[in-house]
Amino acid sequence: MKDFIYHAPTEVVFGKESEEKVARLVKKYGGSKVLVHYGGGSAKRSGLLDKICGLLQEGGLEIVLLGGVVPNPRLSLVHKGIELCRKEKVDFILSVGGGSVIDSAKAISYGIPYQGDVWDFYLGKADPACCLPMGCVLTIPAAGSEMSDSSVITNEDGDVKIGYSNQMSRQKFAIMNPVRTFTLPPYQTAAGVTDMMMHTMERYFSHDDDMTLTDAVAEALLRTMKDCVYDVLKDPEDYRARAQIMWGGSIAHNDLTGCGLSGDWATHQLEHELSGMFDATHGAGLAAIWPSWARYVMHENISRFVRFAVNVMDVPNDFTDPEGTALKGIEAMERFYRSIGMPVNIPELIGRDITDAEIEEMVRKCSKDYTVTQGQFKVLQPADMAAIYKMAAKS
Amino acid sequence: MKDFIYHAPTEVVFGKESEEKVARLVKKYGGSKVLVHYGGGSAKRSGLLDKICGLLQEGGLEIVLLGGVVPNPRLSLVHKGIELCRKEKVDFILSVGGGSVIDSAKAISYGIPYQGDVWDFYLGKADPACCLPMGCVLTIPAAGSEMSDSSVITNEDGDVKIGYSNQMSRQKFAIMNPVRTFTLPPYQTAAGVTDMMMHTMERYFSHDDDMTLTDAVAEALLRTMKDCVYDVLKDPEDYRARAQIMWGGSIAHNDLTGCGLSGDWATHQLEHELSGMFDATHGAGLAAIWPSWARYVMHENISRFVRFAVNVMDVPNDFTDPEGTALKGIEAMERFYRSIGMPVNIPELIGRDITDAEIEEMVRKCSKDYTVTQGQFKVLQPADMAAIYKMAAKS
Repeated sequence: MKDFIYHAPTEVVFGKESEEKVARLVKKYGGSKVLVHYGGGSAKRSGLLDKICGLLQEGGLEIVLLGGVVPNPRLSLVHKGIELCRKEKVDFILSVGGGSVIDSAKAISYGIPYQGDVWDFYLGKADPACCLPMGCVLTIPAAGSEMSDSSVITNEDGDVKIGYSNQMSRQKFAIMNPVRTFTLPPYQTAAGVTDMMMHTMERYFSHDDDMTLTDAVAEALLRTMKDCVYDVLKDPEDYRARAQIMWGGSIAHNDLTGCGLSGDWATHQLEHELSGMFDATHGAGLAAIWPSWARYVMHENISRFVRFAVNVMDVPNDFTDPEGTALKGIEAMERFYRSIGMPVNIPELIGRDITDAEIEEMVRKCSKDYTVTQGQFKVLQPADMAAIYKMAAKS
Repeated sequence: MKDFIYHAPTEVVFGKESEEKVARLVKKYGGSKVLVHYGGGSAKRSGLLDKICGLLQEGGLEIVLLGGVVPNPRLSLVHKGIELCRKEKVDFILSVGGGSVIDSAKAISYGIPYQGDVWDFYLGKADPACCLPMGCVLTIPAAGSEMSDSSVITNEDGDVKIGYSNQMSRQKFAIMNPVRTFTLPPYQTAAGVTDMMMHTMERYFSHDDDMTLTDAVAEALLRTMKDCVYDVLKDPEDYRARAQIMWGGSIAHNDLTGCGLSGDWATHQLEHELSGMFDATHGAGLAAIWPSWARYVMHENISRFVRFAVNVMDVPNDFTDPEGTALKGIEAMERFYRSIGMPVNIPELIGRDITDAEIEEMVRKCSKDYTVTQGQFKVLQPADMAAIYKMAAKS
């Protein structure tokens, strides 16, 4: 068991009428002039954006709008946001959207008071001294950015996608109304659930086998998410199931499921290169990589994979054959991914075979020009990364 | 499912060397002159109090000491603490101890800036406008006060024990070192686990049957606590099990296990009168009441008790006999309480029979002179309270 710090201070306001409180919450946390940050058309089309802007203005708040965030959010828009906020003297950022919008807001928030380029933080060259306070109205449960300390930004100059974590980027509040997720298409719903489950699995696959409570909570979360996704794919307006998924996405990534564990995060790192290169949906990319990662690393701690198979995937435990049980757990996960429309390898993700040159390019980026390893469950050298990509390249 | 707000901002610093960070944490949250609040002799005898004071002074902080908190903490000491803090111009309160010490600190903190008597808040006559910031070094996992918004104070003038909840009383930080709990005697350990399990059970027994994720997390927590208590009673220095219990006590009462649920809290209210009148250990009092409460109310929602029996107490589900399964769950809980040295009725708690006059006195107090009900799973009228006390009066 590792010593740990758990600090998830975000005020979560959850339920059917939660948006109504937006102006009060912004004011509670010190905002007076608000950047309303959003993505493409859906927040606009659904009327949510207009509603939020109306509520803020009724509450006596000034607003400045910045839309256009895309999945795998871009550094160029972050730069634009920083300039805009400085010019307009914005003192609070409100995201209306999913993880991409909130991640973009975090980067803007770091950048406003910083003299240099905000990309420095993502490159590990500096840490911000302060940042603007932020809140969000969540519309896509997946990334968990609404309660996490992390953000991932893509620098179009070289298609480099890098994550950065800092406690100061925790949202002051997160408004979550499950009704707002009724219109999410099945693919995005399934990719979101895959992402949130992976946030917990990245922590769960650990050599710290003695943090029993965290493991039990993680397994409870994974089983619940697995069950609820079928309900929402069958009935997109199933409020109960949408609510479990929305709340599950937050606690899957607010550190609760990692207390006392080392965590791995290799699957996320390997995937970042995939979605960076092919602009794939992050959750789908994770499903395309995980089974290959799992088969490659399972012998590092076979009992962990047996536990996962039995306690999460409901595989009967063959006590005489731990390896067989572990493998059946991975196969069960693949069947689960397929059953919700997720890919289980790279060709299924990108719609064609991947070339050796593309794999080598991903290995180069993932290892930062062959200088860093990834993961902790098994520390992956560049050759291991290549081996996993090659396993995942087979359809 | 109920709409909910989840806001547990306390920074938890967990592990073997966590106390070393105490001065840095007090300063991070604005303290310069600190009331160090503690209980009886154990924090002193163990050397922890001296260590904490030394660390604070080395960190350049001034300290003022106030010990003497007893279980079921007294209003008189709270008054003394308020006066002392005003006189000494204290700006931060650090508790070193368990729930009683932290509860006492919360009351002192509310009272310092308030013109009237702090007891007003507990009587529901007023709400504090502000309070002093607080942190704690937890030594007894049980009450969950280190992450909760609640405190319970006993007014010796009439032996009245009343709880009060306010978000502003959340601790800024909670230092938790499981090693510090190695010396807890078996009775106190068992009573602590009973208390934390009850914090989750009070929320779990609800008519909101559709908050699947919260239920799954609650069941995971209850099963883990039930398992770990045997390990620590066998080996008091089992770090793994002590750590699960310590962390379990916090998340059992930081609202995580109540998200989306109405909660009941009748067992707590009925128990407050017991421990108020007989100065019994709160956790033991809960064990003495719960089985009678459960049998009295189970028909309000039998499926909830079946779920508890099967998912928490490992009772085989007799699908043809929900009532039988539910009852077996309650009996299994009684066996669990007995096996860890807890009472399951009032005579076992207080060592003698309770008189009808004493029961009537408890009913009178619990119903605030027959003017209020208690509980939500079944709304208890004074006659219901009397019936439950009478069931619990039989050995």
